[in-house]
Amino acid sequence: MVIKSMPETNQANGTNFEPADDRDNDRILSVQSHVAYGYVGGKAAVFPLQCMGYDVDVVNTVNFSNHTGYGRFGGTKTSAEELTAIFKMMDEVGLLSPGRLLTGYIPNAAALGVVKELAQKLKTRNPHLIYLMDTVLGDSGTLYVSQDVIPMYKEMLSLATIITPNWFEVETLTGVPILSLSALRNALSILHERVQHVVISSIPLQPWLSDVIPETMQPAASTDDQQAYLLCISSSRTIGSSSHSTVHSRLVPLIPGYFSGVGDLFSALTLGHFNPSLRPSEGKLHSATQTPLSLAVAAALHKTYSILEFTNTFAAQLPPGDRETTDDECDAAEPTRKLKRMRGRELRLVQGQHILREEWREGQGKDLQFWDGFWDSF
Amino acid sequence: MVIKSMPETNQANGTNFEPADDRDNDRILSVQSHVAYGYVGGKAAVFPLQCMGYDVDVVNTVNFSNHTGYGRFGGTKTSAEELTAIFKMMDEVGLLSPGRLLTGYIPNAAALGVVKELAQKLKTRNPHLIYLMDTVLGDSGTLYVSQDVIPMYKEMLSLATIITPNWFEVETLTGVPILSLSALRNALSILHERVQHVVISSIPLQPWLSDVIPETMQPAASTDDQQAYLLCISSSRTIGSSSHSTVHSRLVPLIPGYFSGVGDLFSALTLGHFNPSLRPSEGKLHSATQTPLSLAVAAALHKTYSILEFTNTFAAQLPPGDRETTDDECDAAEPTRKLKRMRGRELRLVQGQHILREEWREGQGKDLQFWDGFWDSF
Repeated sequence: MVIKSMPETNQANGTNFEPADDRDNDRILSVQSHVAYGYVGGKAAVFPLQCMGYDVDVVNTVNFSNHTGYGRFGGTKTSAEELTAIFKMMDEVGLLSPGRLLTGYIPNAAALGVVKELAQKLKTRNPHLIYLMDTVLGDSGTLYVSQDVIPMYKEMLSLATIITPNWFEVETLTGVPILSLSALRNALSILHERVQHVVISSIPLQPWLSDVIPETMQPAASTDDQQAYLLCISSSRTIGSSSHSTVHSRLVPLIPGYFSGVGDLFSALTLGHFNPSLRPSEGKLHSATQTPLSLAVAAALHKTYSILEFTNTFAAQLPPGDRETTDDECDAAEPTRKLKRMRGRELRLVQGQHILREEWREGQGKDLQFWDGFWDSF
Repeated sequence: MVIKSMPETNQANGTNFEPADDRDNDRILSVQSHVAYGYVGGKAAVFPLQCMGYDVDVVNTVNFSNHTGYGRFGGTKTSAEELTAIFKMMDEVGLLSPGRLLTGYIPNAAALGVVKELAQKLKTRNPHLIYLMDTVLGDSGTLYVSQDVIPMYKEMLSLATIITPNWFEVETLTGVPILSLSALRNALSILHERVQHVVISSIPLQPWLSDVIPETMQPAASTDDQQAYLLCISSSRTIGSSSHSTVHSRLVPLIPGYFSGVGDLFSALTLGHFNPSLRPSEGKLHSATQTPLSLAVAAALHKTYSILEFTNTFAAQLPPGDRETTDDECDAAEPTRKLKRMRGRELRLVQGQHILREEWREGQGKDLQFWDGFWDSF
């Protein structure tokens, strides 16, 4: 195999940056939603990162009773003024110098403006800050946020080290409907104008995509023709270079049903596993085709998928009433039906914490595959 | 050794209560403070309980930047109306049936009133609810809360399964200054009129106390005459019985310096380790003198003390400026001095998570000792 584009490394983060305090290297500031019950937003992100050994500072953008999947929820959104006050006080006391920043659901443009200022300040203070911005806009054609948040996220792309949009968020941020390989290339190249590391967390394996992925990535022959798959893509590029990005991907079977917090967990694990100093040129990597991002995404994808399987196996053992598939008509007729189904599908992070704590090594058959020729004739 | 009063068991909790959903048995609702940076309140309680395998529902009574030990902090208190709205929605959706309840810092009487209603509702719904009420009032002679909170906590004692006051909180709740064994007996008997399980988390080993504890509890001979000790007491009694409580205790060396969140960690671990079904009459206990409470407290004390030692060892390795002892005068002259000291003494829960995850077995030399004759001639 000829490697067309060598893996790029994060040169800014790979240098011998010495923070004021070593402890800050393993400190992540997480800014996202909080729910009392269940696992989305910070509840899906913080515990896994703590299990991995990170001190996590936690700022809640909302304080809700439960996630929206239950159909009803209550609580309050943290106002832009309240967020400003928290960050200002942390700064004045001397507690605002994390090595990594993770941001997720931000309910409105005013709050997002505060997060933008925060990211700018942290990046100015520490040029080696690793900022994973989860551009939480919506999923499968539905926006979760108000329209005025979209241009702000576009502006903020250049602040991020890594972004982790799903396919709908890629379309929303780039304006490019992803319906062909050339559209996918186009969208990725638009995002890479501003961001070094782009992860497209999941794209359904529709026929056009199935037709263009390398043969080695194709799903194994299955007796179940109905099995659906999702493709996860990682793409790294050196900002300012004229070369294309290095693209990797991996296919995972779709687990049917509505699970909440999956994207939040995946993004947290991607940030937690990202190690910019893993450069193949230094012989630290098993395979010269891997990048720091492809390794982080492989670990995050494996663990997220394992937690989903673990949760799904549990849900399948529940009494029949607790494991019905989605059916709005039946839900309307029997109000507790949806509740039971949602409860049964809360991520089993606590019970599956052994998964979160696994040491990750490349070369165990779970690595992403280098997409040779992705940019050919672009 | 003659056992004067046999260990009491929690009969209500020891029966074969079958909740509507097995999962709720391992679900704890935690209602206490939240700080973005560092480990107090919920940040000191939730992660340890998750490590132990509990699903924890988290309702924040305040959202602050950091703990008060830094001298400055910012953020908001959750209003009584906001708390009511969260609990009401959780209830309406069908997510309010935890097997255990843990409450800590509640900033004012209005919010405490909401927590009281919550506890009443949960207890009515599930008579086997295990409620650990940490009566957070103050420490070492200083109140953290407004005066009008005190009578409310007194009223709420009868709702609790376990309370975990420090000596100052015992004095505040009972009006009895603990300056002699008879005063200690008096205070405990006042609390036991309302509460089955009382833990006095720490009493300094002053001469009067040193004179009355059994010889087997005395500290080992030390070359350091200045070594100070704290006594931890557990006391269980069957409500409505005329017999005295069963008292156990253990002495631990005082680790000098100001650490925050220690009581919050200890209370959470006590609740997490409490297993009312461990009855010596059923041969499940190693020693007939132990109670479900004394075992839980032994585990919580051991783990809390181990985390403190772990944190202290870390703090001692920091540069000199980060490990100064408390000195308000020097702090005033150099503002970052206090910050460094406080940061250096944040509990190392994440780094010491192996301690939190230890399987606990009685009879490893860390058990509390039965205080034979505690109630003699009372």
